Order: sequence, then C-alpha cells, then structure tokens
Amino acid sequence: MKEIIGTIVSPKGFYADGIHCGVKKRKADLGWLFSEVPASAAAVFTTNQVQAAPVLVTREQLKTGKLRGVIVNSGNANACTGEQGIADAREMIALAAAQAGVASEEVAVASTGIIGRPLPMATIAAGIRQLSHSGSPTGFQKAILTTDLVEKNQVIQTEIAGHTVTMAGCAKGSGMIHPNMATMLAFVTTDVAIAPSLLQSLLRKLTEVTFNQITVDGDTSTNDMVLVLANGQAGNPPIEENTFAYKQFQKMLQTVLTTLAKAIAKDGEGATKLIEAETKGAPTDLAARMISKTIVGSPLVKTAIYGKDPNWGRILCAIGYSGQRIDPANVAIELAAIPVFAGGSPLDYDETLMEERLTASEVKINVILQEGAGRGKAWGCDLTYDYVKINALYHT
Amino acid sequence: MKEIIGTIVSPKGFYADGIHCGVKKRKADLGWLFSEVPASAAAVFTTNQVQAAPVLVTREQLKTGKLRGVIVNSGNANACTGEQGIADAREMIALAAAQAGVASEEVAVASTGIIGRPLPMATIAAGIRQLSHSGSPTGFQKAILTTDLVEKNQVIQTEIAGHTVTMAGCAKGSGMIHPNMATMLAFVTTDVAIAPSLLQSLLRKLTEVTFNQITVDGDTSTNDMVLVLANGQAGNPPIEENTFAYKQFQKMLQTVLTTLAKAIAKDGEGATKLIEAETKGAPTDLAARMISKTIVGSPLVKTAIYGKDPNWGRILCAIGYSGQRIDPANVAIELAAIPVFAGGSPLDYDETLMEERLTASEVKINVILQEGAGRGKAWGCDLTYDYVKINALYHT
Repeated sequence: MKEIIGTIVSPKGFYADGIHCGVKKRKADLGWLFSEVPASAAAVFTTNQVQAAPVLVTREQLKTGKLRGVIVNSGNANACTGEQGIADAREMIALAAAQAGVASEEVAVASTGIIGRPLPMATIAAGIRQLSHSGSPTGFQKAILTTDLVEKNQVIQTEIAGHTVTMAGCAKGSGMIHPNMATMLAFVTTDVAIAPSLLQSLLRKLTEVTFNQITVDGDTSTNDMVLVLANGQAGNPPIEENTFAYKQFQKMLQTVLTTLAKAIAKDGEGATKLIEAETKGAPTDLAARMISKTIVGSPLVKTAIYGKDPNWGRILCAIGYSGQRIDPANVAIELAAIPVFAGGSPLDYDETLMEERLTASEVKINVILQEGAGRGKAWGCDLTYDYVKINALYHT
Repeated sequence: MKEIIGTIVSPKGFYADGIHCGVKKRKADLGWLFSEVPASAAAVFTTNQVQAAPVLVTREQLKTGKLRGVIVNSGNANACTGEQGIADAREMIALAAAQAGVASEEVAVASTGIIGRPLPMATIAAGIRQLSHSGSPTGFQKAILTTDLVEKNQVIQTEIAGHTVTMAGCAKGSGMIHPNMATMLAFVTTDVAIAPSLLQSLLRKLTEVTFNQITVDGDTSTNDMVLVLANGQAGNPPIEENTFAYKQFQKMLQTVLTTLAKAIAKDGEGATKLIEAETKGAPTDLAARMISKTIVGSPLVKTAIYGKDPNWGRILCAIGYSGQRIDPANVAIELAAIPVFAGGSPLDYDETLMEERLTASEVKINVILQEGAGRGKAWGCDLTYDYVKINALYHT
C-alpha cells in the first residue's frame, strides 16, 4: 500500500467541482463530488439528537445503499431551520441531480456553517447551475472548508486481486464558519468493488477507532457526516467478508480515516499541537479507547500541553474519572516517551529533555495498565488563547 | 430562615483556627475546625478513582459517624504520593488530635494543592503545634483557599422545635494552588442534633442537586470533599426523618450547599460570569439536571457567554448531545429571559435588549421541554483567556 499524489477524484470514474457562489463572502462555498456510475455508498452521522436537515435527508437517500454523488455547501449548516430546512436540502439535491443528469434518488447533501438561519436558496441554486463534470477537484476540497487552516486529504493505492485500486479522502473539521458550530465532514472515494452493506458495516466499525476517537472541545456537532463512495471501477471481483482482499480494503479505509481524523484534531480551533494518547493493558479495547479519549479531552491536560508543562498529575486525574475501572497502583504513564509515573508514585526524569520534547508539534501520552490486553488511541489538540478568541470574540 | 453575619463557628460549640505555616510562600495554608463535643459527621468525596491520601484516610475515619473536627492544609494535595502519603495524612491527624486534646479516631483530614509531591511534614507538624482553641475562624476560612479570588461563606439561622439553630458553611474551589488540580472542599457546621446516618443520607441526596451540578472545566479532582459536622448544641430534640423539623433542616442544608456551590462556579478559574441553566418539562429530574449540566459544561456555550454572543444554537446543540432523549421540535430556549428558539425554529428578539442583558455578571439559560415534569438546575462559568493562562502558563 502506498500513498500517491492526487485528489478526491484519483480513484477511477469520479469527478468533482467546487466554486464560490456567495454563501460566504469570498471563499469557496459550494461543491459536488460524483461517480460516473452508481456507487456503493455508506455513511455515518452525528449522534447529536438535534440533527441538521442535510443529515436527516441524506439518511433517507442512503436507504438503497447506492449513490451517484453528493452536493455540499459551506457557510450555512442548514441546522435548526425547521420544515423549510428539509425542503431546502431536498431542493439542493433536485437541482444538483438535474445539473449532473442523474436521478434525485442518487444524490446526498451535506452542509456546514452557521446554524439557525435559512439557506440562501437563490444564491445556492445559481451556484449549482455553474457546477460541471469537468470542474476542479481541488475546488471541491476547498469548498467544504470553513476556518480550517489546512486542507486534509490523502490518496492511497494498492493491488487487490491483481487490480490496482485507489482510495482518496478529504475532510473538514473543527473550524467554524461564522462561529456557530464545529462540524466534521469527510468524503472518501474509491474504485474498489464492494457491496453497500459490507461497506457500511466496515465504515461503522472503523469510525469507532478513528473519527469517534478525536475531540477538539467535546461538543458534538449537529452536522457531522462521513460518506464513502465505492464505484467498482477498479475492476476487482467484489470484496467478500473475511477474505484477504477484505483485510486489504479494511487497511486502506482505516489508513485514510485515521489520517483524516488526526488531521482534523491537529487543525482544531486555535490548536498548536496534536496530542495522541495511547492506552495499553486495559480490560478491553473499548476501555482503552475511552481512557485515551478522556485524556485528550481534559481541558487541564490540553492547557498543560499548550504551556509545555509536564503536568502528569492531570493525566492521572483524567484516567481516574474516565469511567473505566483502574487500580491507580498499576498505572504507568509516559509523557513524550519519558516515564513519569509508575507503581503509585512519581518518577524522576530529565527535565531538560522533557522541556525539549514538549516543544514538538506532536506530543504522545502513553498509559500502561495491568488489567488486560485492551489497547486504543485517541487524538486531540491543545487548548489555547486562540480557541477562546475564535469562539468568544467573533460574533454571530 | 434568615441569613446572619458570622463565621464557620457561629453555630454553638465550634472553634477554628488558620495560619501560615510555610507550605505556601505567604498565604494562609493550615487550619483546623473542631466541635467542643463529638458531632454527627457526614461526608461525600470525589468519584475520581484516583483518590488522594486524605480522602482515603478520612473515609476510614468516618466509619463511626462521629467526629470532633478536621485538620486541613492547602498548597499540597497529598495526592498520588503512594504509601508515604497515607502515612503523612495519618500523622497530620495524630498531631492535630494531640494538639486539640481529642482521640485520633475523632479527626478527619483534607488537603488541596499541588499533586505528586510529598507533604513537607516537618513544616506542617510545626504548624499544627501553633493551632489553638482560641484561634481565628476567618483564618480557617482563608487557610483552605488556593487561588480563589473570594471567600465563600454563608451562615443561616432558624427555629427548630422552639430552639434557635444555626448552620455555617465555607468552601474553596476552582482555584489551583500551583496549578495542578482544581479541588473543591466544603465544610458545614451546625448545632442541630441529628443522627449521623440521617445526616449522611441527606447530604448525599442534596449533593446531587448542588455540588454535583456545578462544573468549571469537567475535570473531576482527586481531592474533592464536603464534610458536615452537626454537634447538637442547639438543644433541639434529635431530628427524625420525614418530620417538619426534617424539612426545615433539609431546607437549611440545601440553602448553604447551593450558596457554596454557586459561589464556587462563579469563582471558577478565569471566570467573569456565573451561568445558570434550568431545565423544566424533562422526563425526570435527573434528565433535567443532566441537560442543564451539559449546557453549562459546553466549551462553546461558555466561550459564547464570555463573548456576550447570543449563540443559542450552541445551547440547542448541547441539549442534543446531553444523552437525554428529547424531541428537538418540542424544545424552547430562553437566554437571559428572552425567548430565542421554540417549535423547531428560531424566534425574532430585541438584539439591543439581549446585548444589554448579556453584560450582566450572571446569565440564566432556561430550557423548556414537553416530555414530563422533571426539572433541575446546574451552574458553571464562562471560558476565558484567563482560564487558559492560569492553566497553561504557570508552570509546575
């Protein structure tokens, strides 16, 4: 498996476009991503009970397991917009389907941005009529962003059953459009042939260990969506469960989802550092993931990492309130690969070395328990003045 | 029931003292609080699985339900200090008991401050020998503080069964000593006569709707402790469950615990505002409390309130991920007593009036559901630059 230079349309048989239509002042705000043929489609959505109109509508559209593509706008989340919001999401689909020349049943919709305001439908409708088959794939990757500082993309390639298969992903996350709501959107394309149900179960499983293991501020958005389109154009025999090809595909999908998830955490609002926590020796993998996620979600750990403060007591404290049963006497902690706590007591360490390591842009926290074989990672970012600034001082 | 001017020793038969002994550089850091006679004692402790030595030791001391008093230091939390920490906590008790002229079994211990460092026992021992029966009650109230900006006290009085009874409380919270760990400590004294078991069950019940409903940053400390001493010196007949006197006493205790809890939230690190969320119409009281607590715990709500931004979408979003079942179409939200959302759609409101109201030092958020009769409040504070500063830029 190798990483290649490319875009979201590097897998065979996809096209994408992205433009500025006027929802935002200047930046790209409207895009589409399509497969030339119907693709197996799978998606996971926010678990927030308040779900934006595009989430509700796309959930419906996915019932057949097949899609041709998705229309996406940024600048307005179409959330908390009542019946009008549902009608607007459906109209976006109808307009995009007509423009692309496909059936309305084959199109999904996603939105991100300010909530509680109706979509400017005239602007969006005019925009959709400008989208084309021969448009700009990088335009799509830009159109889904809000205040993200970097684009988050990956393209990988491998051989499955003698066929070259490609997978590409792009994501936005943790930036705010105006600043109303951090939204995470991710789109993955691949030319692998795989049935929708198998794709869906794999996506759900891998989401647990990738996107569900990142946190920026603990606020679960109303608009989160991860959509995978697999159009079979690589020509491989359709992937069957528990085969070698299945394992290869799982590895591809996990690689892309992990890369995008980590990139979102690293580009969290105001963040200067990626924090990775890994727990081993937990009773179960789930327990290990929860402990890791509690650590990277702790405001006190996040501020300590921002301040380059080797404050392992806050890590131990977070482990203690993670909700997972642990015996403090059997906890060992390494911060930036330096052992700091074991057997219930602090350890001496080289302070100069620690100081040096905490200046890195990625800081790892390792927790070693003696409760079992469970292991799991989580990713977050530091909590900085700029997080407060972005979320307090730009007004709605 | 009336509030009176007084101290933690206003109830009959208590004495207290507080001094600077040298754990901290300059501020008061050691105190004790005693009853002249054995008192019914009840306490609740942190739910963090990593529990500081004084928490573990005091839990043991409480088994008889009777105590004479408590010895408290600030500046060092005696947490994550292994066997030495347990021995040190026990030695603090032995020294205080000897100095006060009571049995070791009758004394509790509490600590707050930096974690992971052994207590400076020589300093503390010399300090304890300076504490006296005729010392300074306000000294005690100061000695439990860390970076708290204000003292948190209340004294109330009422008549129970023809006897004047008094209750006093003081607390510290949400300041950091060095900055390692936010710790919440609260001490309540009363001259009411009540059996330990009844006092304990009442304290546990009321903690659920008071201290457990405040949040500053979601980090549960290793040292939290609320201790109530009731020494019976008011002369009332011992309070029996489900009598009028019981209801009076419950109201007293709830009043003091609520006052201290709100004061801790308001004095949260870096805070400029108290945020109170109240949910009505939830399926149960517990559901209402959880929704209210999720709202005041949301970093996005907290930063919005800091920025005086009427960003009700973040409130709705927090309700949606609170874990409690709700129907978004049946949610109504009032921010600073101004209706902003109802029936699934945004409401128009007077922006000038809203702006004015959001400048107040206390901001109320009301959520009205249509699921049942459950109601509950929670208290928090805004998230500011100073929270990041306090927790990132002062080094261990």
